[in-house]
Amino acid sequence: MHGPDRPGLVARVSGWIFERGGNILHADQHSDTEAGIFFQRVEWASAPGGAAADAAVFRAFAESLGMTARVASSTRRPRVAVLVSKFDHCFHDLILRGKAGELAGDIVAIVSNHSDLEAATRSYGLPFHLIPVTAATKPADEARQLALLRQLDVELIVLARYMQVLSADFLDKAGRPVINIHHSFLPAFAGGKPYHQAAARGVKLIGATAHYATAVLDDGPIIQQDVARVTHRHSVEDLIRKGRDLEKTVLAQAVRWHLENRVLVYGNKTVVFD
Amino acid sequence: MHGPDRPGLVARVSGWIFERGGNILHADQHSDTEAGIFFQRVEWASAPGGAAADAAVFRAFAESLGMTARVASSTRRPRVAVLVSKFDHCFHDLILRGKAGELAGDIVAIVSNHSDLEAATRSYGLPFHLIPVTAATKPADEARQLALLRQLDVELIVLARYMQVLSADFLDKAGRPVINIHHSFLPAFAGGKPYHQAAARGVKLIGATAHYATAVLDDGPIIQQDVARVTHRHSVEDLIRKGRDLEKTVLAQAVRWHLENRVLVYGNKTVVFD
Amino acid sequence: MHGPDRPGLVARVSGWIFERGGNILHADQHSDTEAGIFFQRVEWASAPGGAAADAAVFRAFAESLGMTARVASSTRRPRVAVLVSKFDHCFHDLILRGKAGELAGDIVAIVSNHSDLEAATRSYGLPFHLIPVTAATKPADEARQLALLRQLDVELIVLARYMQVLSADFLDKAGRPVINIHHSFLPAFAGGKPYHQAAARGVKLIGATAHYATAVLDDGPIIQQDVARVTHRHSVEDLIRKGRDLEKTVLAQAVRWHLENRVLVYGNKTVVFD
Amino acid sequence: MHGPDRPGLVARVSGWIFERGGNILHADQHSDTEAGIFFQRVEWASAPGGAAADAAVFRAFAESLGMTARVASSTRRPRVAVLVSKFDHCFHDLILRGKAGELAGDIVAIVSNHSDLEAATRSYGLPFHLIPVTAATKPADEARQLALLRQLDVELIVLARYMQVLSADFLDKAGRPVINIHHSFLPAFAGGKPYHQAAARGVKLIGATAHYATAVLDDGPIIQQDVARVTHRHSVEDLIRKGRDLEKTVLAQAVRWHLENRVLVYGNKTVVFD
Repeated sequence: MHGPDRPGLVARVSGWIFERGGNILHADQHSDTEAGIFFQRVEWASAPGGAAADAAVFRAFAESLGMTARVASSTRRPRVAVLVSKFDHCFHDLILRGKAGELAGDIVAIVSNHSDLEAATRSYGLPFHLIPVTAATKPADEARQLALLRQLDVELIVLARYMQVLSADFLDKAGRPVINIHHSFLPAFAGGKPYHQAAARGVKLIGATAHYATAVLDDGPIIQQDVARVTHRHSVEDLIRKGRDLEKTVLAQAVRWHLENRVLVYGNKTVVFD
Repeated sequence: MHGPDRPGLVARVSGWIFERGGNILHADQHSDTEAGIFFQRVEWASAPGGAAADAAVFRAFAESLGMTARVASSTRRPRVAVLVSKFDHCFHDLILRGKAGELAGDIVAIVSNHSDLEAATRSYGLPFHLIPVTAATKPADEARQLALLRQLDVELIVLARYMQVLSADFLDKAGRPVINIHHSFLPAFAGGKPYHQAAARGVKLIGATAHYATAVLDDGPIIQQDVARVTHRHSVEDLIRKGRDLEKTVLAQAVRWHLENRVLVYGNKTVVFD
Repeated sequence: MHGPDRPGLVARVSGWIFERGGNILHADQHSDTEAGIFFQRVEWASAPGGAAADAAVFRAFAESLGMTARVASSTRRPRVAVLVSKFDHCFHDLILRGKAGELAGDIVAIVSNHSDLEAATRSYGLPFHLIPVTAATKPADEARQLALLRQLDVELIVLARYMQVLSADFLDKAGRPVINIHHSFLPAFAGGKPYHQAAARGVKLIGATAHYATAVLDDGPIIQQDVARVTHRHSVEDLIRKGRDLEKTVLAQAVRWHLENRVLVYGNKTVVFD
Repeated sequence: MHGPDRPGLVARVSGWIFERGGNILHADQHSDTEAGIFFQRVEWASAPGGAAADAAVFRAFAESLGMTARVASSTRRPRVAVLVSKFDHCFHDLILRGKAGELAGDIVAIVSNHSDLEAATRSYGLPFHLIPVTAATKPADEARQLALLRQLDVELIVLARYMQVLSADFLDKAGRPVINIHHSFLPAFAGGKPYHQAAARGVKLIGATAHYATAVLDDGPIIQQDVARVTHRHSVEDLIRKGRDLEKTVLAQAVRWHLENRVLVYGNKTVVFD
């Protein structure tokens, strides 16, 4: 939940949970003192049989405090669609982490504009959806993607090195968070071929950035970033190889946090309760 | 505060503060579910004029919850003594951070078993106390140190590459936390000449560890650790030079956290509410 | 090559290559001034058609300089066997890196003492060899493993979280380098259950170490190490999850360097020409 | 030395040194295969009494190979001027590292546009030169600075958080390398108030960049960069505090490498032979 900061919010929320027989497992809060906004993430065990009722009533309670709240049950696993093109490192990484139990959600489909990863997808026992995208037919292609995502009832869309820019219209109509991995330390090297840009500028660190996609390219709220050291000895190919490792871990971390409801977006920034 | 975990602790504490007109600025809690211990650090602004009363009453309130509490006023700055020998990097670093306002306490004296850093200490406008220590006279020397520290009324003792092992008796009688910096990634390379040990073992990372000194050498609760990458190209002298930077930042971080009352010790471990 | 250091070695070697029409692509050397040992790795393009002859003659030339040399052709890809048990993260990671072209060698077989990873191995199109190992039959089991590895003609054995300790006899008879991944920052937490040891000691960083296996458990020459930050909030399960990422990248890096002939072992240490 | 790449360069250079009775201590080379440029740094011990002659003749020898060479004697310590304003962290850090023997050069003067650091400078036993700079009188102020630097015979100018932009004319007339520390991960957040920019963008890492100053602000060849992790909990003040540590180590590293002749500039990039 988040909203205008004022005294007593922590006491009111923890008191509400205690009175209903719940037990707080984790609680984390943050006040943006400049903006006067209070953020809180509370994880609690409801009294036996009380989870459904708690969820229904908490939102109203939070509203009575002037807060906007989102309530999620940890037993419900969000459905996730992963969009890919030809690069397969984030694709394998996310699926294997899912199988290893690292993600609090289920990857229910792979959607791609190329058929390259169809066999690998099927060997994982996952459905593969091919929707080619061309510049000329993009609006229609995106309409097909949207229809599919709606039909799959996904709650999170992950761009795992998906090489098409999604239109503002798509993002608007999707109405679902879209997490993208950009292969640079944003805001440096936004746009195409960031490793080539990095090599040309002679930086000593390369990075990767996971962020929510917004209508402005590579400008959405940043969830996670990391960097790796490079030297003059590294060719652009080396940067790409090292970058793959960054992209995998940064994207996976962002997806994991999102699925555990640890990421709050406000303005163009995120609060990550890790 | 910390003590046996049970439902409602967060609600009780935050309610207590709210009822007395206080406002929670930060609150962080942790449950060690294996050990069944609840830890909490709450930072609050008391109602105008209420700080002294709050401090006096809170401890009793916490005890009524079965908790052990420590209450500190952020306007009171603990007095700190820094023990040094001949190495000066942590010495300069701590003093300069103090002057830069990074530490929530005051370095009130430098105590050394050598006179090497006397002039530098005085140029910072700080008192310098020379207490030589020899193997033969150690009990008497430590008695002089203890008398001085008591007279200086210090609440924290920092060993900034102080090259004498403090006896269990000293630590017991001091009755004050003692933070030491060990120049390795403990528990690897405990004891003397850790950089030489590291070079001999051929590790690819060297480290530094800040910990509370206890009767067992290099075995006290760890507060902070960090590492730096080394290669076969680095001589022992290079390890020592790189290690100096680690030692400075790791010790300073530990001292800073301690002075902000962010470190809780339990068993042989720490909870750091950073 | 490596051997007793003396003036002129770089000139002699580079002159030899130049005279035979070769072109040095990379050259890196290191003198252990304490031990008086000179190490060099030279990568050169032989004159057209001269590679085979160069390889044959270079060793003799190096011997004439008092050096021990190993010569490898970058067009020959060593055959690699990966030993696994039930953990699959390093298993998937190594195979996928192989398929991505990151390794200068070929994984030709998976050998396991459990059948858990048989299906996954086959889905990658790789042969899977099941050789159960029990305490009672270990000598015979190791004999079967040795026979298999000899038959497979492998030049490198990788223990990708293989959960049996290889006997000194096995290592001796294998006569091939064996790279192991240990899930701690060695020499801290050698032996079993290192993440539990780390949690018990309250360290603030956990690590992973890739090293050559020797007769002394967890004591062989270290090739690569890395660490990740942990806090009191991380349970042993979290340490294990974070550790998986460390283990994957550290083991892969060590295998990659080994296959590119970048690792020289001397005494119980390595020189890595990265 | 650097110049057009061609076969035999390593052999020719190492042969030249060997023939004159020298002994190579370190040698490192790099080929930018795209640009076809060969870079080499060789550190050698001349035959007794031969150092001066070697230096004089080597440049001509390198030219005969088509190379541009710079020869420096490791016994000669370059004179360094440090320009400061009011921030003192890099100022103290550089001076203390100099005193600790970490720099292969001598800080011979502190030059400032403010008098704040005069007393601290004098307590280090260093000369302090006050040259106020105003927008209206900048050309004349820079002329005074240039005259002073020439008179001091410095070979390196270090901007240790010096808060005035040096004009292209100054840089041109100085004819000496100028190392600047910028408090961001360039090219992100060039220009003023980078920590505020970073906070506004919501990045998860902040950085610092040491680079040679050129006529284009914050665009010169990068020598060294590093980053530190930040979260929503960090205020701009925290970013500034954490940034100080980055700035100190990154600037010191760059100055150290430069003074050891480890940095070669070409185009707008650097090759650092570390």
